Amino acid sequence: MKSIFSTLHNDGTSKARTGILSLGHGQVLTPAFMPVGTLGTVKGIYHDDVKRIGYNLILGNTFHLYLRPGLEVLEHFGGLHNFSHWDGNILTDSGGFQIFSLSGLRKITPEGVHFQSPIDGSRHFFSPEKVVDIQKVIGSDIAMVLDWCTPPQISYSEALKAWKMTLDWARRSINRRDELGGEFHGQLFGIVQGNFYKDLRRESARTISDMDFPGVAIGGLSVGEKPEVFEEFLAFTADEITREKPRYVMGIGSPDYLLQAIENGIDIFDCVLATRMARNGTVFTDDGPLVLKRSFNALDTGPLNPGCTCRACTEYSRGYLRHLFKCNEMLGGMLATEHNLTYLHNLMLRAREAIAQDRFVPFKKAYLERYMAAKPKQEDDR
Amino acid sequence: MKSIFSTLHNDGTSKARTGILSLGHGQVLTPAFMPVGTLGTVKGIYHDDVKRIGYNLILGNTFHLYLRPGLEVLEHFGGLHNFSHWDGNILTDSGGFQIFSLSGLRKITPEGVHFQSPIDGSRHFFSPEKVVDIQKVIGSDIAMVLDWCTPPQISYSEALKAWKMTLDWARRSINRRDELGGEFHGQLFGIVQGNFYKDLRRESARTISDMDFPGVAIGGLSVGEKPEVFEEFLAFTADEITREKPRYVMGIGSPDYLLQAIENGIDIFDCVLATRMARNGTVFTDDGPLVLKRSFNALDTGPLNPGCTCRACTEYSRGYLRHLFKCNEMLGGMLATEHNLTYLHNLMLRAREAIAQDRFVPFKKAYLERYMAAKPKQEDDR
Repeated sequence: MKSIFSTLHNDGTSKARTGILSLGHGQVLTPAFMPVGTLGTVKGIYHDDVKRIGYNLILGNTFHLYLRPGLEVLEHFGGLHNFSHWDGNILTDSGGFQIFSLSGLRKITPEGVHFQSPIDGSRHFFSPEKVVDIQKVIGSDIAMVLDWCTPPQISYSEALKAWKMTLDWARRSINRRDELGGEFHGQLFGIVQGNFYKDLRRESARTISDMDFPGVAIGGLSVGEKPEVFEEFLAFTADEITREKPRYVMGIGSPDYLLQAIENGIDIFDCVLATRMARNGTVFTDDGPLVLKRSFNALDTGPLNPGCTCRACTEYSRGYLRHLFKCNEMLGGMLATEHNLTYLHNLMLRAREAIAQDRFVPFKKAYLERYMAAKPKQEDDR
Repeated sequence: MKSIFSTLHNDGTSKARTGILSLGHGQVLTPAFMPVGTLGTVKGIYHDDVKRIGYNLILGNTFHLYLRPGLEVLEHFGGLHNFSHWDGNILTDSGGFQIFSLSGLRKITPEGVHFQSPIDGSRHFFSPEKVVDIQKVIGSDIAMVLDWCTPPQISYSEALKAWKMTLDWARRSINRRDELGGEFHGQLFGIVQGNFYKDLRRESARTISDMDFPGVAIGGLSVGEKPEVFEEFLAFTADEITREKPRYVMGIGSPDYLLQAIENGIDIFDCVLATRMARNGTVFTDDGPLVLKRSFNALDTGPLNPGCTCRACTEYSRGYLRHLFKCNEMLGGMLATEHNLTYLHNLMLRAREAIAQDRFVPFKKAYLERYMAAKPKQEDDR
């Protein structure tokens, strides 16, 4: 298997690293945050603008795309890139996380998972093989295996059961990919699970690392556990994964979690947080999140974050953005989305520069001291 | 008074004309449709993109902007252009139409109108003078006088009362503008009213034409009357207005009504229709309005309207747009808005070309035959 990842530089102060991920639709410099476009659109922003910010790898979701627009449409349009006018890379989450969140509407068997559509109640079945096949139709540049993601505080025996199933499904996913041969163009990543039990995490990390996957993801973190538990299990799991392959932590997107992951040698991550927060009127700044509707913004002629290169910061003021959110104007969500995605992209640039200069740990410390120090202002909304 | 309007060409087949409107933020070629940005943003689109389409004159609303963000904010930011990052022209509607729609929440006196804010119930008073003052703060390039817009089917005596008040308010508006002198940079337009009584319409049109207004608007049409009544009163009223000044019909935005107005020598018009329809998933095409959610669009790889120059038509398909609206994705409204505004702008370009070539009437006939012929497809939604 030809490696899709090469390390550019290992930080001298931590396990952080910069690298290049080579995929079907071009290269991605890492560490890289991936904007989430669940249904083939990153909410509130044109794909052209996502690209212009500097992103070349976004997410889609296999489960959601299978339900809407469905495989007939995706096949007819020749895949998601063409359908959604995105010529960068696409990683598709397998949908395991979403299906297992459908409590009451799904039934898990060793063969796969039966579930009902939350949209129209129709019945469907996903096997590890079928999930690979669907991602072939989508045309994913990175495809994820079907996994069983478990919540915190389940028993060891429950965790063990899900862990075994996930490993078995990983093997079947590889087999299906190999059966498809040249028809399957994506890079299939394995997913480490094991809940919050270290022996399961270790064994999963080592096994998935050794399997014929070009990349390894860490699933089942940031699922409601405390930050210190996240940190502990992130560091522990990352240490058990080969450094030869790209490493992906699923579902993290706040600056503190991202920097924590980078420090542990993680290369890519995704989360809806940046875009969802934006639509609700909260934006990232170097001084912590800013709630735009707050009255203290009303007369503020300054940008959301001084120095930021996005359209919201270069053309508009905090006062205008506040007005848009007070009036529920679409442009508010559009501008805040562009800002938050620009902010995270620029944070990755800063992190890469710090790694290249062997100063990631002091960079992270200084950044977080400022980011976490600002107390939310207490004034009430007007 | 220096004229702000010059006619370029009078059509040889109708009263239609092309012209140039010279305003504080540049020239506007007419006939011109004006996108509506009630609260300082055209809903669902960046001002940059409104400009890029070719628009140089958009609407704001005095009543709404007075309530939110309010005069303190607008004054602090040096007016609406600066606040909203729009360097083209702004016409502000006086808010008369909105206030008179607040039935139960307003009280009309000869002095002005008392009303309660529909947002927080606070009490306010608008006089003709105050409305001029507010538009000074907004920095409107075209300001509208406070008028009393009446619904169809009121009695002659009611219509007469509103008509008299509107004329009196027009005089007071001019006086206030003249008192402000150099402090008031906008062009104050008068508004013809008179309900659906021809003698009132005629008298209003002649009087407003003769007053010291650089432009004349026709209000109180397209307020629920039948299309043939609209046509009759539009033609009748337009004929009574001087052709020396720019003529504006308020609140029309469908292709058939726009072409009807142009044929009668109207130069500018505005309506929320294009942008509201777009957010609800209906787009203009040469074959009539297209409802995007309809199932027959699902596999359609073609553009919304072949030949259209907008982003939705050049980069995306009907099938993708349908998917976005089925999933309530923001991008659907964003793309459809850009399309509908582009469509109307291009319709104006076609109308201007037809006028320049003395073939407006055949152009209108051929256009409407195709636009009105297409029956909505009957297939049910999926």
